[in-house]
Amino acid sequence: MKPLKVAILGATGAVGQEFLKLLDERSFPLTELKLLSSARSAGTKISFRGKEITVEEAGEQSFDGIDLVLSSAGGSISRKLVPAAVKAGALVVDNTSAFRMDPEVPLVVPEINPEDIARHKGIIANPNCSTIIMLVPLYPLHQISPIKRIIVSTYQAASGAGHIAMEELRIQSGEILAGQKPAVKVFPHQIAFNLFSHNTTIDEQGYCEEEVKMVRETKKIFHDDSIQVVPTTIRVPVFRAHSEAIVVEQADEVTVEQAREALSKAPGIKIVDDRIKNHFPMPIEAENQDDVLVGRLRKDLSAPRSLALFVSGDQIRKGAALNAVQIAEKWLADR
Amino acid sequence: MKPLKVAILGATGAVGQEFLKLLDERSFPLTELKLLSSARSAGTKISFRGKEITVEEAGEQSFDGIDLVLSSAGGSISRKLVPAAVKAGALVVDNTSAFRMDPEVPLVVPEINPEDIARHKGIIANPNCSTIIMLVPLYPLHQISPIKRIIVSTYQAASGAGHIAMEELRIQSGEILAGQKPAVKVFPHQIAFNLFSHNTTIDEQGYCEEEVKMVRETKKIFHDDSIQVVPTTIRVPVFRAHSEAIVVEQADEVTVEQAREALSKAPGIKIVDDRIKNHFPMPIEAENQDDVLVGRLRKDLSAPRSLALFVSGDQIRKGAALNAVQIAEKWLADR
Repeated sequence: MKPLKVAILGATGAVGQEFLKLLDERSFPLTELKLLSSARSAGTKISFRGKEITVEEAGEQSFDGIDLVLSSAGGSISRKLVPAAVKAGALVVDNTSAFRMDPEVPLVVPEINPEDIARHKGIIANPNCSTIIMLVPLYPLHQISPIKRIIVSTYQAASGAGHIAMEELRIQSGEILAGQKPAVKVFPHQIAFNLFSHNTTIDEQGYCEEEVKMVRETKKIFHDDSIQVVPTTIRVPVFRAHSEAIVVEQADEVTVEQAREALSKAPGIKIVDDRIKNHFPMPIEAENQDDVLVGRLRKDLSAPRSLALFVSGDQIRKGAALNAVQIAEKWLADR
Repeated sequence: MKPLKVAILGATGAVGQEFLKLLDERSFPLTELKLLSSARSAGTKISFRGKEITVEEAGEQSFDGIDLVLSSAGGSISRKLVPAAVKAGALVVDNTSAFRMDPEVPLVVPEINPEDIARHKGIIANPNCSTIIMLVPLYPLHQISPIKRIIVSTYQAASGAGHIAMEELRIQSGEILAGQKPAVKVFPHQIAFNLFSHNTTIDEQGYCEEEVKMVRETKKIFHDDSIQVVPTTIRVPVFRAHSEAIVVEQADEVTVEQAREALSKAPGIKIVDDRIKNHFPMPIEAENQDDVLVGRLRKDLSAPRSLALFVSGDQIRKGAALNAVQIAEKWLADR
């Protein structure tokens, strides 16, 4: 086996930490691991496979000899450093929104469009977490009959805004239980015992960036510009798994039985749909799982070619780090 | 003014307590107040307008001389006691699901169908909380152009299951923050830092009772059996206001400007729709408010005759006690 030198860009963040866990869990065949972060976190020591690694400050010179970069340090850092990594000869799997809509950059969910990996020019983009968690369970339905329109409401965990946001949920909850006024620092609004529209910039048509990502990325991943997505993205006081209520309209009528059978055979999915016990996907059961949980599968009684479902998936894992590692694994298999 | 003797059935519950608050706040013109509950809570002393009232055990004999009963003691108790109250000559505004779909019983949201009050035969039903909070902001749009189809995902507060459920959210949150395993007692699943499909019985078509209520009650309140409602009802770790993400399809194209103007003039609504400050309806701002908060108003870009919006409303107040008191006030005005 060829030696494989890997760098993690953003190693101390929530997704960076999950990269480390996954590389170990999945016995990822690396021969050297470099951990990169901002100046603020540089010097931190992180243990990996029994060895202590000191986190280094990331710069344009950090990528000499590196074969693979798993990048999750934020869009502006990716825009600055990813081109340097590509120039140094590395493949970059980038978890930010920086390159996702670049026509030269494949945007990949390995269960859906693994064939796009081969046409990379140094960068493969990892989709937005809400998009991944929505599309993994929708793809088996799309294969039965093309999806025309998706109406989706999200229930997004604090983890989407990183470790500090999860910590804010914890701190604010404690403050409220103690009868104190909660301190609002990371999010623009109180997150504990509250919920609010995703705090990204709203465009002229009234959609926030998170919603626009779901609309555009779906078209790109499914290679179908005609698919319509109508999203409402909402942050809820949950730690690390996103949930989504989805109504999906298809070209032909698909029965619940057909949909269930397709979902039961598809990779990356676990059906949790016990109507008797009232047991359906929940974020606490999706946490730390690789699979997206799918349930509440039923006909939309208002339209013959429409189904409804409810899904939960780990935002940090399948919504970010796991999907990126799976991309790297597929890339490696053909290397 | 004629003397008005009022009884509250279920006086010690979350909605019962809110009835007391509202009767006082709104200077409801009662001359006598009787508080009724189960045997378990009978004997409790509650102060109202500076006078202490002892809660009595409710029975078929409790309604002699009573003119108005505000009832919120659960469906089975309503089925048992409401007929006795009607027989004794009282008008009953019933907040349970017991009589809502009875064709003889008006189902009323005062902002929408106050004219139905006049045809009561002793009972007026108060709709389900999620239905009320959805329909108050949709009615002004329905008046511009008939609503054909509503796709709605709810974010429902613990209060929908009463005081004990709100307390369970509080207790479980504390347990989790202390690193303990949360005790699951009232709800079938952990509610703290989690969410789950509304825990009512699922029918053969895969819809839970809460969803079926939203479907049927909408048709009855709007007097239009052709309106389609596609609901997904989800409980979230919020104390007392429900939120809903709504996509509404109408007969004709309605612009965002037309919708906003109609909403701004309609009763029972407050527009919270600041795109620059990313300030939209939130449960913590809907709590203890009479108005339903409405925002995220935008075109559904996938369909010309469809709009999207997000709403929050106090579940105990407009979703239950306030709507019932407003019904009683309208009834009184014509008495």
